[in-house]
Amino acid sequence: MSRPDIARRRTVAMAMLFSVASLAFGQVQACEGHLRSWNDGPAKKAIVEFVKTTTDKASPNYIPPDQRIATFDNDGTLWAEQPMYVQAMFALDRVKALAAQHPEWQTQEPFASILKGDLKAALAGGDKALLEIVMATHAGMTTDEFRQIVKDWIATAKNPATKRPVLEMVYQPMVELLAYLRAHGYKTFIVSGGGIEFMRPWAEKTYGVPPEQVVGSSIKTKFEMRDGKAVLVRLPELNFIDDQDGKPVGINQHIGRRPVAAFGNSDGDQQMLEYATTGSGPHFGMLVLHDDKAREFAYGPATGLPDSHVGTFTQALYDEAKQRGWIVISMKDDWKQVFPLVH
Amino acid sequence: MSRPDIARRRTVAMAMLFSVASLAFGQVQACEGHLRSWNDGPAKKAIVEFVKTTTDKASPNYIPPDQRIATFDNDGTLWAEQPMYVQAMFALDRVKALAAQHPEWQTQEPFASILKGDLKAALAGGDKALLEIVMATHAGMTTDEFRQIVKDWIATAKNPATKRPVLEMVYQPMVELLAYLRAHGYKTFIVSGGGIEFMRPWAEKTYGVPPEQVVGSSIKTKFEMRDGKAVLVRLPELNFIDDQDGKPVGINQHIGRRPVAAFGNSDGDQQMLEYATTGSGPHFGMLVLHDDKAREFAYGPATGLPDSHVGTFTQALYDEAKQRGWIVISMKDDWKQVFPLVH
Repeated sequence: MSRPDIARRRTVAMAMLFSVASLAFGQVQACEGHLRSWNDGPAKKAIVEFVKTTTDKASPNYIPPDQRIATFDNDGTLWAEQPMYVQAMFALDRVKALAAQHPEWQTQEPFASILKGDLKAALAGGDKALLEIVMATHAGMTTDEFRQIVKDWIATAKNPATKRPVLEMVYQPMVELLAYLRAHGYKTFIVSGGGIEFMRPWAEKTYGVPPEQVVGSSIKTKFEMRDGKAVLVRLPELNFIDDQDGKPVGINQHIGRRPVAAFGNSDGDQQMLEYATTGSGPHFGMLVLHDDKAREFAYGPATGLPDSHVGTFTQALYDEAKQRGWIVISMKDDWKQVFPLVH
Repeated sequence: MSRPDIARRRTVAMAMLFSVASLAFGQVQACEGHLRSWNDGPAKKAIVEFVKTTTDKASPNYIPPDQRIATFDNDGTLWAEQPMYVQAMFALDRVKALAAQHPEWQTQEPFASILKGDLKAALAGGDKALLEIVMATHAGMTTDEFRQIVKDWIATAKNPATKRPVLEMVYQPMVELLAYLRAHGYKTFIVSGGGIEFMRPWAEKTYGVPPEQVVGSSIKTKFEMRDGKAVLVRLPELNFIDDQDGKPVGINQHIGRRPVAAFGNSDGDQQMLEYATTGSGPHFGMLVLHDDKAREFAYGPATGLPDSHVGTFTQALYDEAKQRGWIVISMKDDWKQVFPLVH
């Protein structure tokens, strides 16, 4: 047997041994291993310390399992939101896909500009234009049909800046954090300004968060019997905006308990973090700062770069975080790896 | 040792043996034991058959765990709704408790009639009067304060007809059914026309259903910072009516999946059962018929008695149940025991 062969055999044997050892060492050790994409720094330390003390019955900070509620923003907190929200990419693609059925869109704004590829002109109409795009692409079908449309789209959707599949631009350290919290009896919820029905079709597979633990913005639906089958039809009418003041409202409506831990990255998450961290008892707030231009994008305070039109992390929020003791994650310093390894 | 003594010893020994045997025989046997307040009849048989086939991987009716969603109405399905909804008792009691702070109520309807004990006159104002009572008693405080008010009230509240604590007028067979379904990987939800925040404070302890699995009617809330603490203030404005057409809408909003099993007792549950039982794949619908005047109340079709003003189970619903294959539970015939044994 040659020397390289021996070395290879030894490696394989050690890998097998390591697997067995992991099993034998049990839950806690395996769980801290969950945070393997986090650098050993203040953010990881704070997470581990919070989870350790709140799950230790002997600790004064112990939290009973039924109160272990953790809420996560999605865009910019669990996956990339640059150069635009993924749901905006979806809406634009849907306008193009539906254009053949809407010849009037060739001359009607904001659709005409989208079809010409001029996004800036399309959005010049402000909130009214945005709402028209959302309703034209998100309403008019049943909830079952919409779920399938989202599933089909997201399976191949790519980020326009990086050309990577959008589902491969989730943050690996945050996926690990979700699993780590769940392994310690925390129930994890997504609380996003994005559409609740846009996230549910893929959130369980991607984040381990089932549909009933996703909270988001929504349009109204209407019950109908169609060919003997009960369906819900999506209506072009806003139901709820799950952002800023709306996040605690949505949390109360869906979860019915005050979270003890909340994770965000922008002013849209301010009230959610305030809600989670001003209750009685132990609590945890964390904000993701996008300061890693080399591996992701850089925007917000302390990056020396202006805020983007999405994911506004203002200096005021940064100051509030410091004052309230919320942990600010530096993507550059705290994350060993940003995106999942592609197989 | 006398003969009776020997007999008693034998009984104790057999009871001990039986306990040990149950443990040894494992999950399934223990689970069927969960339905001990059900008589052996068509309803129990249908439940056991549905659960057996949908959890058996070899069965063509197998349902994967993530799709095992079961929804339950509350009033008249999980607990008694006669002689009036429990939440109505709560509202009337709150009017009396708050009267000292509202001297104007002595002459202002519908409050004046409530304070005089004349419920009929109070409700003569129809929906408008009802809404005024709800808003005066359910709004104006924070969600944390309301939760405590409900907890305090329900701890001592008694049914005016039976004088039994309202929490002891839950249906024991249905509590067992909830546990039986959960033991087989079903996620159980309450989907009630009642107030979501009225049910959450006691639903987990009473039914094993946590706050985030309770869907119900709601009023709007508003985020506020009060003395440095984030709170939600309950506003005197309707948000959502979770009844009839609203039940599938509420299910989709909160759960995001079509249930495969639904349980109700009135026309308010019709659309929920239609939604659950017209999807693709196996499904189960069940309605509780209140035909047991001796042990509970009798109202609805086939009882020979007129419908009450609450919990309307019309002949049309009865006919639809037969046509769609929904099981109609006869409380009289199918339930060995109606209420929990009091210790």
